[in-house]
Amino acid sequence: MENLRKYFPILEWGAEYSRQILVNDLITGVIVTMMLIPQSLAYAQIAGLPAEVGLYASIAPLILYAIFGTSRTLAVGPVAVASLMTAAAVAPLAAQGTPEYLGAAIALALISGLMLIVVGLLRLGFLANFLSHPVIAGFITASGVHIAASQLGPLLGIHIHGETLIGLVGSIIGSIGDIHLYTAVIGLISLIFLFWVRSKLKPLLIRLGLGERAASMLAKAGPVASLVTAIIVVWIFRLDNSGVTIVGSVPEGLPAIAIPPFDLALWSTLAVPAALIAILGYVESISVAMTLAAKRRQRVDPDQELIGLGAANVGSALSGGFPVTGGLSRSVVNFDAGAETPAAGGFTAIGIALTTLFLTPLLFFLPKAVLSAIVIAAVLTLVDVGALKRTFVYSKADFAAMAATILVTWIRGIEAGLIVGVALSICLHLYKTSRPHIAVVGQIPGTGTFRNVKRHAVVTDPAILSLRVDESLYFPNARFIEDQINGGVAANPDVRHVILECAAVNEIDISALESLESINQRLRDGGITFHLSEVKGPVMDRLKRSHFPDELSGKIHLTHYDAVATINPELARQTLESKATR
Amino acid sequence: MENLRKYFPILEWGAEYSRQILVNDLITGVIVTMMLIPQSLAYAQIAGLPAEVGLYASIAPLILYAIFGTSRTLAVGPVAVASLMTAAAVAPLAAQGTPEYLGAAIALALISGLMLIVVGLLRLGFLANFLSHPVIAGFITASGVHIAASQLGPLLGIHIHGETLIGLVGSIIGSIGDIHLYTAVIGLISLIFLFWVRSKLKPLLIRLGLGERAASMLAKAGPVASLVTAIIVVWIFRLDNSGVTIVGSVPEGLPAIAIPPFDLALWSTLAVPAALIAILGYVESISVAMTLAAKRRQRVDPDQELIGLGAANVGSALSGGFPVTGGLSRSVVNFDAGAETPAAGGFTAIGIALTTLFLTPLLFFLPKAVLSAIVIAAVLTLVDVGALKRTFVYSKADFAAMAATILVTWIRGIEAGLIVGVALSICLHLYKTSRPHIAVVGQIPGTGTFRNVKRHAVVTDPAILSLRVDESLYFPNARFIEDQINGGVAANPDVRHVILECAAVNEIDISALESLESINQRLRDGGITFHLSEVKGPVMDRLKRSHFPDELSGKIHLTHYDAVATINPELARQTLESKATR
Repeated sequence: MENLRKYFPILEWGAEYSRQILVNDLITGVIVTMMLIPQSLAYAQIAGLPAEVGLYASIAPLILYAIFGTSRTLAVGPVAVASLMTAAAVAPLAAQGTPEYLGAAIALALISGLMLIVVGLLRLGFLANFLSHPVIAGFITASGVHIAASQLGPLLGIHIHGETLIGLVGSIIGSIGDIHLYTAVIGLISLIFLFWVRSKLKPLLIRLGLGERAASMLAKAGPVASLVTAIIVVWIFRLDNSGVTIVGSVPEGLPAIAIPPFDLALWSTLAVPAALIAILGYVESISVAMTLAAKRRQRVDPDQELIGLGAANVGSALSGGFPVTGGLSRSVVNFDAGAETPAAGGFTAIGIALTTLFLTPLLFFLPKAVLSAIVIAAVLTLVDVGALKRTFVYSKADFAAMAATILVTWIRGIEAGLIVGVALSICLHLYKTSRPHIAVVGQIPGTGTFRNVKRHAVVTDPAILSLRVDESLYFPNARFIEDQINGGVAANPDVRHVILECAAVNEIDISALESLESINQRLRDGGITFHLSEVKGPVMDRLKRSHFPDELSGKIHLTHYDAVATINPELARQTLESKATR
Repeated sequence: MENLRKYFPILEWGAEYSRQILVNDLITGVIVTMMLIPQSLAYAQIAGLPAEVGLYASIAPLILYAIFGTSRTLAVGPVAVASLMTAAAVAPLAAQGTPEYLGAAIALALISGLMLIVVGLLRLGFLANFLSHPVIAGFITASGVHIAASQLGPLLGIHIHGETLIGLVGSIIGSIGDIHLYTAVIGLISLIFLFWVRSKLKPLLIRLGLGERAASMLAKAGPVASLVTAIIVVWIFRLDNSGVTIVGSVPEGLPAIAIPPFDLALWSTLAVPAALIAILGYVESISVAMTLAAKRRQRVDPDQELIGLGAANVGSALSGGFPVTGGLSRSVVNFDAGAETPAAGGFTAIGIALTTLFLTPLLFFLPKAVLSAIVIAAVLTLVDVGALKRTFVYSKADFAAMAATILVTWIRGIEAGLIVGVALSICLHLYKTSRPHIAVVGQIPGTGTFRNVKRHAVVTDPAILSLRVDESLYFPNARFIEDQINGGVAANPDVRHVILECAAVNEIDISALESLESINQRLRDGGITFHLSEVKGPVMDRLKRSHFPDELSGKIHLTHYDAVATINPELARQTLESKATR
């Protein structure tokens, strides 16, 4: 039963469901539906898919997440970045508008979903951690700009193409003479309206006497308002006859069960993009879910979340949708509107289902330029220049990973950007640990504490070389440390004892063990004893499995003071008892 | 001048050259020549190259290393593993015996040589550290078995083929009925003789009254003796007419200057194998050089060694040879025989040059089976089962990297084995650091020291959660630590303060910083203060560049005792002054 609840969180919150919770969830469901209708259509457009696919991806996934997900407030469905990644993965395989293109997008959702479920069942969620914050932040910023550029085509009524930002920009510049006036006017007015709604509407409504929360919610209806207005304008003036591209007929009714194509060659081509969509979608989603959960003292189970999102994607695929995940903006609205359980998501799904049943004929005259405006207004919030600055100030290595992710995403595309970012993060870490900080330490007068001779006034014995390595000892730095110790001994001919302080050494692997053995051997040949100090419990447990402690010419001491006091008790005690010189 | 000496170490030792050193170097040169003649022929056979190529690779490289190398005792020339790697790289490109095959081998030496020089000039030698000890040891063991199997063909007079050990073994089993009697008899007798020489001859000679060192040197002449005997036997009985494969005519005279093929497609195909040969050759060579240098209190410059080995390889290529490096067995003999300067290598080069000038006609009747016997006897010493056992006992992760390297080398080949080994070493390290050891710590009575509550009898305050993370805080473990702290707080409802002890934290990257920020935020929301203690200088310097220290709900304390004493001065002081309970 405990296990059943773990895999079906609905059993837990479902048991406590009440009338009051129902009311809150229902209201939230209506609000999020109003937000999701334009977004689902717009994100389908980013992915290069027909409008109804966006709606389909907003029904089954929400219900499945409500059953399997552990966040009470995460709003699942199409999101901008995953839609862009879908377009990038599918575009090389088939032409937009063909059944093969749609089939590949559906297969992509299925594969990512299955991957998420498998990773969740195997409890391998930690793999997502290798996507470092700078890489995610860089990738999202890069994607935001890329998506915005890709939507300038429909917004201005020009035909653009290009799989990278560079390609898109070239294409936009080349077609700038072909801008379609009516389309551009509709698109730009919508865009200005949306920006106005975001920054000015809420204060205005408050000034008009509305409550803070009601004003905030009403301001979220901006996209729906622009959509309705544009439909009416195009319909009255029949602007479609003047060349304004419209959505056209959207099939009515609920999605049929789709059988994604089972084509091994297709699946293996889609494996890498599906994995990247799964990882990135998961990382984004779990961050949002954890942040919101913490605000209400709730808990999210990272492994069960994989299963929840995986089920949502499989559900999307089986109902003819494309990859989905938990989105930031809708989740925040869901949270603020007062969603108490995932049932709110279920009500949203019902709202979208009703839309596909009854409202699709109304979408006929919807100009695509408005959807582009909605996309651009949404994705520009993803661009985070502040993060670039903060990262630059804090760490040049992290900034390098971030900048590389952005530039490679723009120049070489989505997949290359993410892969280069992750690889560079790992390489920079390995590089840093391969040449660790090594300090010569001495005793602080009046204490048994040893500190860096360069930062503190300390007492040292010329016969003793005390070194502190600030890193685990492992293969990338084993030879470096060997070289540093050899160099230190060669530079100080009076040295008779070397003590390595290991308080910051969290691991000694076998490469480092062999280096320590050869250091010991060489020092012994030169008549110098070699000691270790402050070796941690787990590291010591492991050292005991080798012959090293027996072969060591010196000893392994509990504290660095013990080590020095064993070699030169007089000086160590005098320094301990003396007053600090300054 | 200082710089000139750095890049031309010959200027340093050349200035001190004396008559006594000359005599020592000369004697050593003769001894090593006797060892190198059979080895150079045998290793050319491993590489699938004509006998003279082995001799050519033993002249110019030795002279160039004498000029540019920093080890006084390293013996450069063809070695078994690099020869196998050459065969593996070149075999897919051309048929053995064709000019294209030879050209590719020469190009491989040139490319590796240039890579080594560039890496040396850029001082990037640390890159070699990413080849961990278990991967090297595993690869050498795997190569030893692979080479031995590949030589069973010529040894037994059967035709075998296969690029992997698995392929070779299958081929040997399939051709076992075709064993050529005379060839097999010559091969097996040579092999038994060589093993006897190695294990029994030296004690026998000592019993016969020879000195320890002379006996040892004489025993090294075993391969030459087997070679001479076999040539005479084949010549007298004209066994070549009975189907024993002989070396045949070897061109007389010194090598002409070879122009390696400059074919971009060929070069890019050879780039990866050339890099692997360069790295592995360098790592092997530098280990031998450092070990021998330490015995005589000499120093080896790791970056200049890259240039020395690079020059040797470029020289090999330009004189029609194949990849070379510093070999273990000949270097040890060189050292034991009393080589004082790299001039000993120069004299060896002269010895080999005289051989190519005058002795090649004598090699006509040399049966290839004897060369195979020499190879097998040599490479089986590379197989180190003890290292497997030691590694298994010490660390399962290191053992996994070693075992994977061996198995992949045998099943998928040389290149795949090395690459998988390195990748697995890195992944295992990242995995380990992604879920670090986190200890709850308490104060040891009578001290200001804090230790793991599970290992020591300590005093804790239920309102304070003191955690020690034994790892740097960086992206692979940022979320794990977040989760652990959240979990620790959720499990202890009385906790009002969390203190993170950072003595073992050598880095906090921006991903971890953002995790700390969100931990701080969440704890603050729950009315819990968050403190850090024992943050190191370099880590603190970096933290100060962010807003974290200002936003922190608690403080950053110098020592963990200070942190606890600030929160609960009474308990901290009482514990400090109390006697240890046991």
